[in-house]
Amino acid sequence: MITVVKIGGHVLDAPHRLQAFLNAFAELVGPKILVHGGGKMATAIGARLGIESKYVAGRRITDEATLELVTMVYAGLLNKRLTASLQSLGCNALGITGADGNSIRATRRAVAEIDFGYVGDVHERGIHVSFLRDLLQRGMVPVIAPLTHDGQGGLLNTNADSITKVVAAALAQVMPTRIIYCFEKAGVLLDPKQDTTVMPHIHASGFRELMAAGAIADGMIPKLNNAFAALDAGVRTVVIGQAEALSQLVAGTKGTQIL
Amino acid sequence: MITVVKIGGHVLDAPHRLQAFLNAFAELVGPKILVHGGGKMATAIGARLGIESKYVAGRRITDEATLELVTMVYAGLLNKRLTASLQSLGCNALGITGADGNSIRATRRAVAEIDFGYVGDVHERGIHVSFLRDLLQRGMVPVIAPLTHDGQGGLLNTNADSITKVVAAALAQVMPTRIIYCFEKAGVLLDPKQDTTVMPHIHASGFRELMAAGAIADGMIPKLNNAFAALDAGVRTVVIGQAEALSQLVAGTKGTQIL
Repeated sequence: MITVVKIGGHVLDAPHRLQAFLNAFAELVGPKILVHGGGKMATAIGARLGIESKYVAGRRITDEATLELVTMVYAGLLNKRLTASLQSLGCNALGITGADGNSIRATRRAVAEIDFGYVGDVHERGIHVSFLRDLLQRGMVPVIAPLTHDGQGGLLNTNADSITKVVAAALAQVMPTRIIYCFEKAGVLLDPKQDTTVMPHIHASGFRELMAAGAIADGMIPKLNNAFAALDAGVRTVVIGQAEALSQLVAGTKGTQIL
Repeated sequence: MITVVKIGGHVLDAPHRLQAFLNAFAELVGPKILVHGGGKMATAIGARLGIESKYVAGRRITDEATLELVTMVYAGLLNKRLTASLQSLGCNALGITGADGNSIRATRRAVAEIDFGYVGDVHERGIHVSFLRDLLQRGMVPVIAPLTHDGQGGLLNTNADSITKVVAAALAQVMPTRIIYCFEKAGVLLDPKQDTTVMPHIHASGFRELMAAGAIADGMIPKLNNAFAALDAGVRTVVIGQAEALSQLVAGTKGTQIL
């Protein structure tokens, strides 16, 4: 079973939580991949560089300066820190973007109402499965930064939850694969303010009902959409939960299992 | 024959020269590795971030802020741009630092008269030869940023010429290996101001004589010391010359061959 673990932004900004997560990740048995998000560091370093974070309709626009910024912060600072830390824990990490080894080729998002700039959309057919599988077979642990490439020499800013979904879906065609989405909350919560209201399971029908009732937090909706799409694409199990509880999420004793 | 190519700072700052170099590099037949330096971009971005470049006795000090800066610029911006560009030229580049795949483990330089900060010294025994050889055997092209790790979770700023030398020396133990040091000059010049005075060959004895006569440019001395050390360590040939002339340097019709 291949385990694809996504680690979200807020945990990347909290050194102690991140260390607890990395310890648990390093101990995880079997072939595994870590996909990381961006965190607030890009915004903070961007502010020091005079690069303004631009949003249209609540969504970040990646202009040329922003692409440079996220390439520095995601593929440089974050990815290499995670890689060096995992190496010190005996985990043979290899930090990559989608350009490295042509691992993830994406399509630049077409300009419709909004021009998102250098943003890539990913699809299973853009995943270089044999490259990732070879790394896993040799005991290596790919650590994927949320950047892909267009095959024309350009890098593209790409959502880490989406990368997690398509990488797992592509690998699921050749080996049983599961996804663990890790973030700061204990799972999918019935009351977003109360960590004790974590739902142990959620079905697609239950998700639609809760969404209709407005009971699902905004940030959780794309995550759950990705989770259900991954299951549809052949991923065995998807669990959402707290980063530090990674081993219990894998064991099925904590977090929310998506069914 | 494995070809280890070093591309120096000034060429990285000149887009047209860099493109000509990358075209030639992509066309190079056989297993190959690219090691890149830093260029002026780190200083320029550092200035925008308010990170001052500090020098003691003419040598750069890597404090914590500088280490963050070079990790962003070398491992992020430069390394991923080179990787994405090479991918667009049909060259299956994989951008790495020494932390990735534990490829280069270094020792933090001991504090003697000067504390250089987070600077790594490399030795052949720190090179993960089987990892690099496996990549080469599968047709991949490692693109190495000038950063290594200490195995304790720390990254270290490391001279790219030295990385080139030790990587080539380590690989030379398992396969014939050559080094091409590429920079902005046509080779080792008798008169550093005249590109027409390139020496087709230089021997260790001739180097010592020229150095005693003060005829070798300052920046060239460590490069030539690395070149002679590489030959002593079993590297077959070392050539120094202009980046855009890479194919002629490989063919032996341009540049300076080190004997």
